[in-house]
Amino acid sequence: MSLENHETKELFTIEKVTIKNKKKIGSGNWLEIDEVEYIEPITKAIRTWEVCKRKTDFVKKEVDAVDIHGIIHSPNLPPQIVLIVQYRPPVERYCIEFPSGLIDQGETVEEAALRELQEETGYIGKIKNISDPICYEPGLTDSMTRIVDIEIDLSLEENISPLQSLDGDEWSLKVIKLPLYNLFEELKGLQQKYNESLWIDSRLYSYAYGLNIAKSTKFN
Amino acid sequence: MSLENHETKELFTIEKVTIKNKKKIGSGNWLEIDEVEYIEPITKAIRTWEVCKRKTDFVKKEVDAVDIHGIIHSPNLPPQIVLIVQYRPPVERYCIEFPSGLIDQGETVEEAALRELQEETGYIGKIKNISDPICYEPGLTDSMTRIVDIEIDLSLEENISPLQSLDGDEWSLKVIKLPLYNLFEELKGLQQKYNESLWIDSRLYSYAYGLNIAKSTKFN
Repeated sequence: MSLENHETKELFTIEKVTIKNKKKIGSGNWLEIDEVEYIEPITKAIRTWEVCKRKTDFVKKEVDAVDIHGIIHSPNLPPQIVLIVQYRPPVERYCIEFPSGLIDQGETVEEAALRELQEETGYIGKIKNISDPICYEPGLTDSMTRIVDIEIDLSLEENISPLQSLDGDEWSLKVIKLPLYNLFEELKGLQQKYNESLWIDSRLYSYAYGLNIAKSTKFN
Repeated sequence: MSLENHETKELFTIEKVTIKNKKKIGSGNWLEIDEVEYIEPITKAIRTWEVCKRKTDFVKKEVDAVDIHGIIHSPNLPPQIVLIVQYRPPVERYCIEFPSGLIDQGETVEEAALRELQEETGYIGKIKNISDPICYEPGLTDSMTRIVDIEIDLSLEENISPLQSLDGDEWSLKVIKLPLYNLFEELKGLQQKYNESLWIDSRLYSYAYGLNIAKSTKFN
């Protein structure tokens, strides 16, 4: 059997699921919990699931947010990735993350990505790629994002002394730049250095994990 | 200035944040919304943030869950990664994800990872590495995980005809295997093929993104 037919090409079937009912069962100012009742497509059993939604999502957009992969290019240094550190009340710790943010009403993905990059880091960038929509944590929330690849040219005058313009709730937000090539080791080093005070976001960690495994795996 | 002193080595300060109060403001059977009140360390301003918590988290463990990077090795094929597809009510779609699951009470990370891999995919594996704790979505929830690297040896008798043993709410869960080397292109291909019915989890997407960027970037 040739490689063409190996198991990766096997398909799975997608049976259409019908939503029977949704109701709000808990609510704050920003978040709400909904109970979703749906009909299992084969057995027709009725099942329920609880979902956390952002109440800011008043006009349902395709995605709620943008995640920014900002790569800094300069003639004298290997490529660096621009990241942020901020205090995150849900985990009661500081976290290292990709710059990101919610898309404002009426704003495109492109506009939101360039705006958030400039607000959070001060840098002006150029969009190179926009990903398909991806789901943040699909067992818990309906929150969706697109990853936007942005190239940051350090030789531009606007990028010489980048200035943040932060919201009040971003009081703790700091910018760091790490070399792309050693990202995984650098993140592990920071986590150890700051020990229990600092954690790494799962998307950033997974990205660095993938980069690292590409260096250490024999693919053939 | 030498490379030793380049900006990646700059440190950020971690100011200790004090939690003033927490109260439950919304609740379902599985999820609850808490309002956290904390004191900003420099200005001493009092700020609030809403957090979604799992109510199953009755004994606070270091991490709630395990995410499994299961790599399949066989003499005749390049390495493949084992993934799952399942219906996710919060996004009303099927999603492709790493196998994962909550850690049971009294269970170690190792035990949970091997159990979840076997339940969800049928495979028996060997643990190669366990990551530091990482936060799933630290702006929204307190949920934490560890990534467990597991090697799956296809030449073992137990792995010839792997059998899942699923819970009722995992009725839709299917196993797929994709070649590690082309993971990003394979995922994009599946997303296009199944169009609006299928989305990709953010951690898996980021991992594949990192793998892919390692192939296309000149690091020096």
